[in-house]
Amino acid sequence: MENQVKKAEGKLGILIPGLGAVASTLIAGVAAINKGLSKPIGSVSQMSTIRLGKRTENRNPLIKDFVPLAQLSDLVFGGWDIYEDNVYEAASKAKVLEQSQLDQVRETLEAIQPMKAVFDRDYVKNLDGTHVKQGTRRELANAVIEDIKSFKETNGCNRVVVLWCGSTEKYIEDFKEVDVYASLINFEKGLDEDDKRISPSMVYAYAAIKSGVPFVNGAPHLACDIPALVELAIIAEVAIAGKDFKTGQTLMKTIVAPGLQARALGVSGWFSTNILGNRDGLVLDNPENFRSKEVTKTGVLEDILDAKKSPDLYSDLYHKIRINYYPPHGDNKESWDNIDIFGWLGYKMQIKINFLCRDSILAAPVALDLALFIDLAQRAGLFGIQEWLSFYLKSPQTAPGLPPENDIFKQQIKFQNTLRHIMGEDLITHLGLDYYQELVESMI
Amino acid sequence: MENQVKKAEGKLGILIPGLGAVASTLIAGVAAINKGLSKPIGSVSQMSTIRLGKRTENRNPLIKDFVPLAQLSDLVFGGWDIYEDNVYEAASKAKVLEQSQLDQVRETLEAIQPMKAVFDRDYVKNLDGTHVKQGTRRELANAVIEDIKSFKETNGCNRVVVLWCGSTEKYIEDFKEVDVYASLINFEKGLDEDDKRISPSMVYAYAAIKSGVPFVNGAPHLACDIPALVELAIIAEVAIAGKDFKTGQTLMKTIVAPGLQARALGVSGWFSTNILGNRDGLVLDNPENFRSKEVTKTGVLEDILDAKKSPDLYSDLYHKIRINYYPPHGDNKESWDNIDIFGWLGYKMQIKINFLCRDSILAAPVALDLALFIDLAQRAGLFGIQEWLSFYLKSPQTAPGLPPENDIFKQQIKFQNTLRHIMGEDLITHLGLDYYQELVESMI
Amino acid sequence: MENQVKKAEGKLGILIPGLGAVASTLIAGVAAINKGLSKPIGSVSQMSTIRLGKRTENRNPLIKDFVPLAQLSDLVFGGWDIYEDNVYEAASKAKVLEQSQLDQVRETLEAIQPMKAVFDRDYVKNLDGTHVKQGTRRELANAVIEDIKSFKETNGCNRVVVLWCGSTEKYIEDFKEVDVYASLINFEKGLDEDDKRISPSMVYAYAAIKSGVPFVNGAPHLACDIPALVELAIIAEVAIAGKDFKTGQTLMKTIVAPGLQARALGVSGWFSTNILGNRDGLVLDNPENFRSKEVTKTGVLEDILDAKKSPDLYSDLYHKIRINYYPPHGDNKESWDNIDIFGWLGYKMQIKINFLCRDSILAAPVALDLALFIDLAQRAGLFGIQEWLSFYLKSPQTAPGLPPENDIFKQQIKFQNTLRHIMGEDLITHLGLDYYQELVESMI
Amino acid sequence: MENQVKKAEGKLGILIPGLGAVASTLIAGVAAINKGLSKPIGSVSQMSTIRLGKRTENRNPLIKDFVPLAQLSDLVFGGWDIYEDNVYEAASKAKVLEQSQLDQVRETLEAIQPMKAVFDRDYVKNLDGTHVKQGTRRELANAVIEDIKSFKETNGCNRVVVLWCGSTEKYIEDFKEVDVYASLINFEKGLDEDDKRISPSMVYAYAAIKSGVPFVNGAPHLACDIPALVELAIIAEVAIAGKDFKTGQTLMKTIVAPGLQARALGVSGWFSTNILGNRDGLVLDNPENFRSKEVTKTGVLEDILDAKKSPDLYSDLYHKIRINYYPPHGDNKESWDNIDIFGWLGYKMQIKINFLCRDSILAAPVALDLALFIDLAQRAGLFGIQEWLSFYLKSPQTAPGLPPENDIFKQQIKFQNTLRHIMGEDLITHLGLDYYQELVESMI
Repeated sequence: MENQVKKAEGKLGILIPGLGAVASTLIAGVAAINKGLSKPIGSVSQMSTIRLGKRTENRNPLIKDFVPLAQLSDLVFGGWDIYEDNVYEAASKAKVLEQSQLDQVRETLEAIQPMKAVFDRDYVKNLDGTHVKQGTRRELANAVIEDIKSFKETNGCNRVVVLWCGSTEKYIEDFKEVDVYASLINFEKGLDEDDKRISPSMVYAYAAIKSGVPFVNGAPHLACDIPALVELAIIAEVAIAGKDFKTGQTLMKTIVAPGLQARALGVSGWFSTNILGNRDGLVLDNPENFRSKEVTKTGVLEDILDAKKSPDLYSDLYHKIRINYYPPHGDNKESWDNIDIFGWLGYKMQIKINFLCRDSILAAPVALDLALFIDLAQRAGLFGIQEWLSFYLKSPQTAPGLPPENDIFKQQIKFQNTLRHIMGEDLITHLGLDYYQELVESMI
Repeated sequence: MENQVKKAEGKLGILIPGLGAVASTLIAGVAAINKGLSKPIGSVSQMSTIRLGKRTENRNPLIKDFVPLAQLSDLVFGGWDIYEDNVYEAASKAKVLEQSQLDQVRETLEAIQPMKAVFDRDYVKNLDGTHVKQGTRRELANAVIEDIKSFKETNGCNRVVVLWCGSTEKYIEDFKEVDVYASLINFEKGLDEDDKRISPSMVYAYAAIKSGVPFVNGAPHLACDIPALVELAIIAEVAIAGKDFKTGQTLMKTIVAPGLQARALGVSGWFSTNILGNRDGLVLDNPENFRSKEVTKTGVLEDILDAKKSPDLYSDLYHKIRINYYPPHGDNKESWDNIDIFGWLGYKMQIKINFLCRDSILAAPVALDLALFIDLAQRAGLFGIQEWLSFYLKSPQTAPGLPPENDIFKQQIKFQNTLRHIMGEDLITHLGLDYYQELVESMI
Repeated sequence: MENQVKKAEGKLGILIPGLGAVASTLIAGVAAINKGLSKPIGSVSQMSTIRLGKRTENRNPLIKDFVPLAQLSDLVFGGWDIYEDNVYEAASKAKVLEQSQLDQVRETLEAIQPMKAVFDRDYVKNLDGTHVKQGTRRELANAVIEDIKSFKETNGCNRVVVLWCGSTEKYIEDFKEVDVYASLINFEKGLDEDDKRISPSMVYAYAAIKSGVPFVNGAPHLACDIPALVELAIIAEVAIAGKDFKTGQTLMKTIVAPGLQARALGVSGWFSTNILGNRDGLVLDNPENFRSKEVTKTGVLEDILDAKKSPDLYSDLYHKIRINYYPPHGDNKESWDNIDIFGWLGYKMQIKINFLCRDSILAAPVALDLALFIDLAQRAGLFGIQEWLSFYLKSPQTAPGLPPENDIFKQQIKFQNTLRHIMGEDLITHLGLDYYQELVESMI
Repeated sequence: MENQVKKAEGKLGILIPGLGAVASTLIAGVAAINKGLSKPIGSVSQMSTIRLGKRTENRNPLIKDFVPLAQLSDLVFGGWDIYEDNVYEAASKAKVLEQSQLDQVRETLEAIQPMKAVFDRDYVKNLDGTHVKQGTRRELANAVIEDIKSFKETNGCNRVVVLWCGSTEKYIEDFKEVDVYASLINFEKGLDEDDKRISPSMVYAYAAIKSGVPFVNGAPHLACDIPALVELAIIAEVAIAGKDFKTGQTLMKTIVAPGLQARALGVSGWFSTNILGNRDGLVLDNPENFRSKEVTKTGVLEDILDAKKSPDLYSDLYHKIRINYYPPHGDNKESWDNIDIFGWLGYKMQIKINFLCRDSILAAPVALDLALFIDLAQRAGLFGIQEWLSFYLKSPQTAPGLPPENDIFKQQIKFQNTLRHIMGEDLITHLGLDYYQELVESMI
């Protein structure tokens, strides 16, 4: 397959709906890294190695040296926002990075002015923006298509990807029953009729895919996962992935839960609370928006700790998640988990995990990697749903009817074996009996 | 390969040097389970399912229904101890299980009287036992061989395994330089000359392997991992595995560290403290014995967070481990970890994990599984070092020169793929591109 | 004053509205203690000493040996409940104490049958009881007065106290504006007219005080703190105290906050979350009932960390409290607090407190002490509001216009100096310069 | 007594042996505060109010407006150190304050050059300094006396105090048996004979007191608490106080333990661990020096949780303290405490406290307050041991034979009532029955 991957030539445009804390942290970081001022810690594409061949071969190249990814120096950023702030101003208000660090890349950041956003306050109650496009759904979609085209030309980009980093939209119940989502033909009719059930993020997703541009959804609401847009992605041969960047508490959860499951330890309760004080916290203070988050956050345990497969271990699991808006912490999101487990003969034990994390610091490299890898997927001809990127996502989009894997370690193997597959390397199974065969032979 | 696995017919004897807290919790538990009073939670062999074939096939049998393991009702327990207490008395003193629970299986436990132990106080300073064998190393080894033979006959066992559950012996520096460990011929000469560098646990390991009986080392000191005994295991075609049951804090560490590594997060410090008040805590209060533990506990991070592969992420990692004897907690071992990590652009975050665990409750099912699986290995013709059992071990024994995998999730895949391999099933790589190929085809 | 205190002769009846977890734990405990099976740990009246005179005098009697309290063997328990369970059944369902312990005092507990309760579901939405009295407010009050009289006679009690241990009733906004609470005359008119604004707990309080019987409110809702009942207490010369037993998280809060305040450390945020799975947790899952609790829990910090006195330290304090119904923990209430503090030059620090407590185990001795001390107050002629018992209460009732002290250490001094005052001992000021005067004199 | 307090006229010199992290944080802070750049958070003398009279009088002046203290603008700092760094350099190396903050007061800090120190490496094994005085103990004492005199004259100080902020010296066993400490005559003979049992800190203390200058010991080793120096302080009519600044874990311990004791809760175990990476951590990595710390840290619980007064509650208390040198945290000392408590009928509960503190940020205002208040004591004629300053000290020095109070709240009352006493205000007992007398009278 290796020969089929197109090279990463020229510039890659990364267009972002929502130039807030995550996006500005990403953009400022890439600028600082390109200036040699800092390092892309947390970015697997840039920092991680991948084992090739047998353990004894010692072939462990950096991933970025193994697969043909866009270089950080070839990235061009742009986007849309409901506020007029340029990226320097947005980053300063977000208070994620130190001001002195922002000042080192001030010019680069100031040059990035948001385009007017597609916005409908009904989907994000706790915010109100003024820098927004007017028009019907169809007109808005056309305007975004025009934005993408114009950005690509103006900046001389060879390729573009669109990456949702905006706020969480409200939850939509039983989306499979909604006719306007059910097929491409219905959806396009809905655009024409300005159907309010089409959310702003769906408008962006449609516009991107229609433009032949990969789309990634970093938030927990519905976007490219409706049947209409999956259909469009396959027809248009465009890669898509979603949803919800896996960071913070859920990251820890999909690390720890597989460990407990691996050892057949029972879990009777998992209480998770979060405190955060950034704009994300403010949006999630609204119950309708929190509901979107709650669904993706809750689902991960049901899959990993599967009560159907192991009723003795997990059928009584009580899982509760709370998110609390707590201004004193700003972007320094913090989680506390109480996990009630039981072992041999049912004896009870407890685990408490307190994660003093930084929301956007964890999300920025995830956003970067998703942009780089979905661009790789597109060049490798892997269109439609990219489940192998589930490694980065709280609620992975999969083929209809296929249950997702939420265990981050299975996701990691899928991710790594996909890269090996793309480059024509042997897949790794960790069997490794041959090492011992050799040992025996050496002794006889 | 499936056809080559001998069936698990007749009784399996499990002979244990060290009938203390772990062993008595294991034995009492199996007795209670066999009476239908309780369940073997935490035992992967009994409780876990294994996925076979594609995700959509929904083939997830229990492991015990997939591979031919000895039944719990076919197990016969025995062992050696430096104290005369029968297993009922030992379990009562250990205070791990509730007395009312022990009383339900009192007869079974009282019937198990320890044989006199091989003991040298120079190896375990904080204990002093009276129920010990006398003689030279050679005489002691012969006595243990005789014990095994006699136990097998008396109890009508079809097969036997030996499982070290005794205290941690003192640390031995640079064991590769010690001539008496270097080859079987040297070692047997050492037995004849009563060489004090041969530890009690090595005497047991030698006796077991010489008897054709698999040996597992559940403690962190040197035993079947010296070259002489690896040689003997291969010549005698006997399965061996070591070392140190992976439970508690190290279990959590090999769960959490792979998660951080998977995401290319840097780690600058990892401080681990433990409080425990059982006999294990007392033994480890002695610096020479603690040293053995410290080495196996420390090693896990060096492999998972590999500073050679990722110097920017792990070269400054400061790792410190403390174990504190704290009588108020008895067997309720508790750990607190402070983990200093850094992400995007080097920004700092912290994770605190407080594990209120129960030492023997976690160890007992691990001991059970190791006994059952090493018996399986022996029947499957997999002799010598069983690296696939590293899933259960803090410091896995591997082929000379082969670096161990400490990441519990890689160990789990190795473990599961070995089971699939033994039974002739496809190995699982988690690639899964075919699901999407089908989706595309269904749409065209 | 000492001579004015009447002796604690004869039996003391303790009548409890709400024979649930707290009450049954209290009653079972007193029964076990009276049988010599256990000790009243956590009861200051029974276990604590009090310093008298100078430090060098070494006069530290037990409080129960210093002031004339009712003996535990002279207590007689009774009460009302909306369920028919006797106290043995209620204690068994509450699962606070081990069943084997309850069985040791089974007869005593089974003998205590609840009288029918005054109940109005509008005040406690999440419960529904069948064992309830019927009638107008006036008829209910008369029935309770009759119950008290009858209990006293039947059991040959010399004195009685009434102690609310029932569920939290709903919050009442601006109670000072409610005319029916404003004066005794209005209140009695309200009883006659069956005014629904009179809550069940007010009916009990009225009946008790009217009977000349002290009343204590262990829950956070309004009861004896309305002006009408304060008026009645003074006219009838009856001691009253409220409200809300100080246990668990708030206990810790009024311990830790005074320490931070003592050292002039700033506090910018205090996030408190609780998980509990008992009936109390179920009732508080209803927002109206939670509101009562929230108000008493929140108030404590406003007084201790006083933004008016120290605006630089406390004017930005963000205080948030969450209570989560979490069945896996039952009565084992657990709290986690994150406290954001700042010190010298504004540098930030954090404190995290995780309290694995047991709700009723902490509340039972508080309930006991309040019963014993309010009986003492009554005998000492201290009628009306007993602020010196604020030591035990989350939201102390004080004289109108007098701000409460929530600092548990000031409350403790008030409590101890009140006991010293009652018994004619010198009050303690901790000045202690005299010790050093003596030292100087001894050297000259 | 108020009239007897001399006014705080002119400059106050604060001379500090040990110009390291604590001292440089103090000095830089005072400079920044005097420039209006920051606030003295954590300084009770500057930030706290004190209640005078009845609660209803609302008289709550700032302490600095109530008692005549030296103004921050009248302070002049100097000191001795074993390294030549000026205070700007020392503060930069300590990395407690942000460099940008230090740069704002750079000139002031650079101007403070340490005088050569009295040093004996036998007392602080892990350090080695070059900037040290030579000579016999007598010559060293004379040199320090000369330093004090010269500093006072050069800087035009009206008064001077000496404040030990240096490293912890090694522990001295059974100091009451050491003849050279037993009396002033012996001690002065020891100085003449260069007796090595006289530590550097004793030389400073002697020199200060001999110069009529108050001395405070902020470290846990022996200094002004030997009989010889108490004798000198009384004869010379000089105020002294010790020892060991109460900050961090011990501060929390003397806050939380009194709370548990107040409520008669039993304590069976208290495990305290610390991680810190500053010079203090390095010095305490040496067992002899750690021993000094361990003794002062351990003692606090023995007094507060008194097993003699309450054997049922505290006689089984197992108290263990660990300090771990952990470079990743620098001055950001962090503690984790596990507290095992028991309540009603002996039921067990646990408290976990994780304090992410900053060592020098907590210590600096304590050092400031001690300097200001011991100067007040001297002006108020309160010479000899100042037990009322125990509020700030881990191991308070008291009159021989008088047990110390470690409960921070009793210390606080002693402290506040001493201030009231000095200024002729009524002492506060918190009795407060008069408020209720008024209420009753108003109703009749």
